[in-house]
Amino acid sequence: MASLVIAQGGGPTAVINQTLSGAISAARKLDPSLRILGSRRGVRGLLARDVVDLTGLSESDLVRLGNTPSAALGSTRDKPDTKATVAVLAALEDMDARGLIYIGGNDTAGTLELLRKESSGDRRFVHAPKTIDNDLMENDHTPGFISAAAFVANAFASVDLDVRAFGGIYVGIVMGRHAGFLCASPIAWQADPDDAPHLVYAPERAFKVEQFLDEVAAVHDRLGRCVVSMSEGIQDENGVPLAESLAKASGGAVDRDAHGNVQLTGGDLGLEIQRILKARFAKARTRVDTFGYLPRGFLGTCDATDQREAFAAGVFAAETVMRQTGSVALTFDGERTSPVLVQLDSVAARTRHMPETFFAASSLMSDEARRYFQRLLPPRPDLFRPFV
Amino acid sequence: MASLVIAQGGGPTAVINQTLSGAISAARKLDPSLRILGSRRGVRGLLARDVVDLTGLSESDLVRLGNTPSAALGSTRDKPDTKATVAVLAALEDMDARGLIYIGGNDTAGTLELLRKESSGDRRFVHAPKTIDNDLMENDHTPGFISAAAFVANAFASVDLDVRAFGGIYVGIVMGRHAGFLCASPIAWQADPDDAPHLVYAPERAFKVEQFLDEVAAVHDRLGRCVVSMSEGIQDENGVPLAESLAKASGGAVDRDAHGNVQLTGGDLGLEIQRILKARFAKARTRVDTFGYLPRGFLGTCDATDQREAFAAGVFAAETVMRQTGSVALTFDGERTSPVLVQLDSVAARTRHMPETFFAASSLMSDEARRYFQRLLPPRPDLFRPFV
Repeated sequence: MASLVIAQGGGPTAVINQTLSGAISAARKLDPSLRILGSRRGVRGLLARDVVDLTGLSESDLVRLGNTPSAALGSTRDKPDTKATVAVLAALEDMDARGLIYIGGNDTAGTLELLRKESSGDRRFVHAPKTIDNDLMENDHTPGFISAAAFVANAFASVDLDVRAFGGIYVGIVMGRHAGFLCASPIAWQADPDDAPHLVYAPERAFKVEQFLDEVAAVHDRLGRCVVSMSEGIQDENGVPLAESLAKASGGAVDRDAHGNVQLTGGDLGLEIQRILKARFAKARTRVDTFGYLPRGFLGTCDATDQREAFAAGVFAAETVMRQTGSVALTFDGERTSPVLVQLDSVAARTRHMPETFFAASSLMSDEARRYFQRLLPPRPDLFRPFV
Repeated sequence: MASLVIAQGGGPTAVINQTLSGAISAARKLDPSLRILGSRRGVRGLLARDVVDLTGLSESDLVRLGNTPSAALGSTRDKPDTKATVAVLAALEDMDARGLIYIGGNDTAGTLELLRKESSGDRRFVHAPKTIDNDLMENDHTPGFISAAAFVANAFASVDLDVRAFGGIYVGIVMGRHAGFLCASPIAWQADPDDAPHLVYAPERAFKVEQFLDEVAAVHDRLGRCVVSMSEGIQDENGVPLAESLAKASGGAVDRDAHGNVQLTGGDLGLEIQRILKARFAKARTRVDTFGYLPRGFLGTCDATDQREAFAAGVFAAETVMRQTGSVALTFDGERTSPVLVQLDSVAARTRHMPETFFAASSLMSDEARRYFQRLLPPRPDLFRPFV
């Protein structure tokens, strides 16, 4: 009995299960004879023959599945080596799989590209996009980004009100390895130039400690408060992530995953930022919080547009896998967002960064960037301007 | 022209402005001749004669004010000394103030009790409650708590799904100085004994490092993951906050505010917890995030019940200040929550803790605790149970 295999890879998002739900829903309409199998924990489930039969999920289960954040099938950051690639292809053969839909980021697309190259039959490999980092080439934006950005925008608008009440300096550290889309996204909710975040430190611009402290001082002198959005992935002038150079400076080890990515933990960076702020601004109230996992699947900020687009990407992936191999990408034509098919190797293991034109200065974003994020994010709530 | 002065003290919440809005709205109905003055940054505004006239705010402004988190008048943790107490009373005299409504926690009630004792006239002092810590005596629960707890419950339900996808150990550090209500509140959303948080470490129970590590190991062995809710205010067996003993151990200084409270920053505690987890569980994926300011005024989780109760507390405070002095407390009669008036000194500078009966073990909460939080929090979203 022919099957279709679906798997999920990389970090969870609020809507990765919408894509799964869309793919299941569409695949069983397109070919009711197909068995739809979910591989547990990405390619690991294929290697271990650990799959779950998704064919019979009820419509209400599909709706609940879609509305539940994170990866219901489990995830992995494993990258198959030559031997594992052969074993995965053998598993697909054994399952009489017409194809594999793998929902994930650029590393997941890379895994599919490996499988495609080694596959001899007419099996199809389709990548469906997801990442809160918004860093996939060929995509206007990626499923998962809007919900995560909605969390971050809510957080900075809320913290700005909080910090107004007392004054002081606040730094929120936001996930993002190489691209700063997520840490820059809260500029969408700036109704006034004095609204937070007052400064944005993205991985795309070299981070210089003295410059950072001077910029904070200037805002704090002017407003009595300074709220900073900082990416976990900020790098020094040599392109070394601060989290890495800090770990090395303190004699610690640096962990890497199978794709060679350094494991960032905002906590270390946060404490170091707090230390240098305290040293410079001894009298100011300072606080550094690490948002960590919170933005990427927060139930309270799952975005309806994001959910719809992620579901549509899953539907499109299922339609694609019936006839060809490739990567689903979300494009924007000036009016609407639609999925299109692109080559796997145009997405695989590559990273999209914020363009130069998104920056007005090292720590300030441009109006073009603001318009981009405003187009994607939900509108800012109508807030009362405080008396302080 | 007679006036009524309103001020806000202590840490911001999602609904402190609802109480302000309710007090303004009721006061001007009760006595249209009154000038309603807001003191900027708590008692500081009275000392500096820095007040804003709130009398003419439009109805739509009052609605927007109420829906905006944090303290629109600004806040303070200042505690007036004898000289400042005299100066504040003189300011109220100059403003021909019939009374002062001060919205805040137990320290704010303490400031009002100081003023009441030193006041010679028939001026009224009314405390309106707010605190995300839920630690005010005489109150069933406090305005601000439900919204903060809704954030924390959303966070742990979301993170539990996230950690399921990969497995591993996660610790979320939650605000709370002496009382663990907020860190325990996410148990309201446990639909299954295996739902997060699997362990809760509140300030009411002595924290022992070895016991903590053993408890984490047991859950991790059983489920392949362990999600922990830990209060920023956890203390060792001698009642010393870990954040304080850690700071002393590393040779750092301990900051205290005017009320003698140690300034906790979850970041230091978080890094220490991460270090001891890494040392014990070298191979497990571990992550410690500090929620910090996020729960206390997050726009995305402002709770409608909390907003309504906070507004009603403000209305009741305005009704009270027309005739007497005291502290507004929220009581629950088994069916509904209502404001009542209690003595200032039964709330002032005292702390309510979770009762013994809320604990099933040092790190597990009882069914009684779960029922209490379930009564207060919004219902858990209907989630799909993951396949891993």
